[in-house]
Amino acid sequence: MSTLQQMDHSSLQHLHEKTKKELDAIKKENLSLNMARGKPSAEQLQLSLELLDSVTSKNIGDNFFVLNYGMVDGLPEAKALFKDLLEVDTEEILIGGNASLNIMHDLISKALIKGVIDSETPWGKEDAIKFICPVPGYDRHFTICEQYDIEMISVEMLNDGPDMDKVEELVRNDASIKGMWSVPKYSNPEGITYSDEVVERLAKMETKAKDFKIFWDNAYAIHDLTDHPPKLKNILEACKKHGNPNRVFMFASTSKMTFPGSGVAVVAASRENISFIKEQLSVQTIGPDKVNQLRHVRFFENYSNLLEHMKKHAEIMKPKFDAVIEILHSKLDSYGIATWAEPDGGYFISLDTMDGCASEVIHLAKEAGVTLTGAGAAFPYGKDPRDRNIRIAPSFPSLEEVEKAIDVLCTCIILVSTKKLL
Amino acid sequence: MSTLQQMDHSSLQHLHEKTKKELDAIKKENLSLNMARGKPSAEQLQLSLELLDSVTSKNIGDNFFVLNYGMVDGLPEAKALFKDLLEVDTEEILIGGNASLNIMHDLISKALIKGVIDSETPWGKEDAIKFICPVPGYDRHFTICEQYDIEMISVEMLNDGPDMDKVEELVRNDASIKGMWSVPKYSNPEGITYSDEVVERLAKMETKAKDFKIFWDNAYAIHDLTDHPPKLKNILEACKKHGNPNRVFMFASTSKMTFPGSGVAVVAASRENISFIKEQLSVQTIGPDKVNQLRHVRFFENYSNLLEHMKKHAEIMKPKFDAVIEILHSKLDSYGIATWAEPDGGYFISLDTMDGCASEVIHLAKEAGVTLTGAGAAFPYGKDPRDRNIRIAPSFPSLEEVEKAIDVLCTCIILVSTKKLL
Repeated sequence: MSTLQQMDHSSLQHLHEKTKKELDAIKKENLSLNMARGKPSAEQLQLSLELLDSVTSKNIGDNFFVLNYGMVDGLPEAKALFKDLLEVDTEEILIGGNASLNIMHDLISKALIKGVIDSETPWGKEDAIKFICPVPGYDRHFTICEQYDIEMISVEMLNDGPDMDKVEELVRNDASIKGMWSVPKYSNPEGITYSDEVVERLAKMETKAKDFKIFWDNAYAIHDLTDHPPKLKNILEACKKHGNPNRVFMFASTSKMTFPGSGVAVVAASRENISFIKEQLSVQTIGPDKVNQLRHVRFFENYSNLLEHMKKHAEIMKPKFDAVIEILHSKLDSYGIATWAEPDGGYFISLDTMDGCASEVIHLAKEAGVTLTGAGAAFPYGKDPRDRNIRIAPSFPSLEEVEKAIDVLCTCIILVSTKKLL
Repeated sequence: MSTLQQMDHSSLQHLHEKTKKELDAIKKENLSLNMARGKPSAEQLQLSLELLDSVTSKNIGDNFFVLNYGMVDGLPEAKALFKDLLEVDTEEILIGGNASLNIMHDLISKALIKGVIDSETPWGKEDAIKFICPVPGYDRHFTICEQYDIEMISVEMLNDGPDMDKVEELVRNDASIKGMWSVPKYSNPEGITYSDEVVERLAKMETKAKDFKIFWDNAYAIHDLTDHPPKLKNILEACKKHGNPNRVFMFASTSKMTFPGSGVAVVAASRENISFIKEQLSVQTIGPDKVNQLRHVRFFENYSNLLEHMKKHAEIMKPKFDAVIEILHSKLDSYGIATWAEPDGGYFISLDTMDGCASEVIHLAKEAGVTLTGAGAAFPYGKDPRDRNIRIAPSFPSLEEVEKAIDVLCTCIILVSTKKLL
């Protein structure tokens, strides 16, 4: 078989008509499949159900203080459990509520009003501030910037992380660049893990803004799909080594380990940063939900159990990822009209169509009953400059539904690509 | 017996020496009693222990969606349960995390960065902004203002709420006054409930700032100690009637109904305000802890059970309040050196010493092992202009401890007062 680009007009026309009929047939099935968000499936939630039983009226014991106010930085036992997740000391971590996104948002809103630890001026008092956004990236990061009028500068993701030549040049010359987003392991959506060199360069680079901060959203720190996962270098240690200990805020959460709505979020940073954050937090709240922290502590007991638990998630996730990859290969390989990542972990598969096709593919898939993440979502301001990126989130539907949905997606890609080339 | 003011010098001297010896004896007891914060006691926490059992792996049923992401405005069932607490519709309420203080803080920080629904300019872009602070008041409200450089204007609390002549005059003439704090029922610390007239005037008053907001912290909405509690007029309804539907944000939480650390917080406001808040919230989080909301829904089932539950709290709290009042009467009545409130609910008893005595009384009590809320805490910037207010929080210690602590407090008051008059 020849790629679409090599096909003659009539073969293309024939394929287009055939595919159109296939899609019309699919529409009659009245599908309703959702691959839009990185949501764990019911089967995954079930893995942690016993967490709900770990603190009850019968077994709470003398731990009444967990029910009361206080401990704004979280339960010491929870710090001890989660410190290994981000490879920090218990003095370098805070345990919060159910959403790491919330902590990131709060840090930015406080930076705008008051500044961060090394600010001379609150960010919001500057004429303009900017964040570096590796693209494609996580839409909710970008939405926070958009909401608060933080200008986003896109930097392309390469195979081992963001284009560091570009990043270094930007931050060296522009004092209004105050921050940078990063999902350093299994990046959302491409599943790329930053190389040691990238981590080193981020930690070491010269920044014109003295109060430049990296928001290191390690959302998929232990969400591996293979037995030999890539190892992410510890950026806090690298920052310390290069004399920039306060450069990075690291985040993680149990959203995709236990329950997305009722998990525990953590932030790690230098001791100085942590005490600065703690002081700010104590203005905002009298303390986090320590009972839920205790639930997690009792459910996991130790970090190695947590790692074992993640293997059970992988057992559920891996067949879905494999199915997506396999179907993409079998349906699209020959046509040369799409490329995609084949990540070792995380929650997404990022696919690029030919330029100018993604919106229409997503639109057609939606009409056929398959909801994908909106076109452009992985880019600042929702605008994919080449209109080619599609984020596939296979976790929530069943394996059977994933197979069906990807089949539909492939049909839509072929249809839009043939139309484009005709 | 004569009041201290009427006593001759040698009687005063004698009383002073005698009291000094009493305090010295107390110090030898090595007491450690804490009346600093409005924390429920272990006995109160015990009332809700079964809430921990209301969502388990056995009884969660098909409610898996509560474990997952979503529902940024909270569980519909939780809205249905808590709407009566603030007397609003389900469309006028949002159910959040474990801390209403957090919601208040967030609303203010977003107002600073983005403005509220009717702002032309974000508050933070104005030259200066101010809040009216009825005094004495809640220290954590004032801390938020202080943290964000919001100038605080103290207005005296009268017997039926803040001095409305003063409030009306201030907001009519000063466009930089953007907000006002209120704890309208059983005010912290005086236990005053705003009269209908005060509520009406707040709802109706002309404000120079078009985006003026009342932060209506109804923390003690149903925390009554008597069978015939005062009824607080619904300020949202009053605001609507007077054409100012977006003027008020109402807050409540289950912190002092179930668990302070693991409760549920609610905010109520006009539908317009609620959808504005919801939109902002969706930038910040993917949703609150719905499992904990479900726990509360199942534990209480309905609003009338919640009211019954509060009676059990009252049974524990009332003897402590009675003991405080009784000891204050018996120890201090004759001397004419202190006045205090005798509230029908809430968490505090506010006591005024003679001018210039409170700091020293609190300092002496601390030395004798009794921790009270810091001097001046109930005033903006921590400064009680007359240095006379002491906030007594009798909830946390046992009844016996409360009795002992108040006894010590009275001793300290007599000692400082005699010294002052000598």
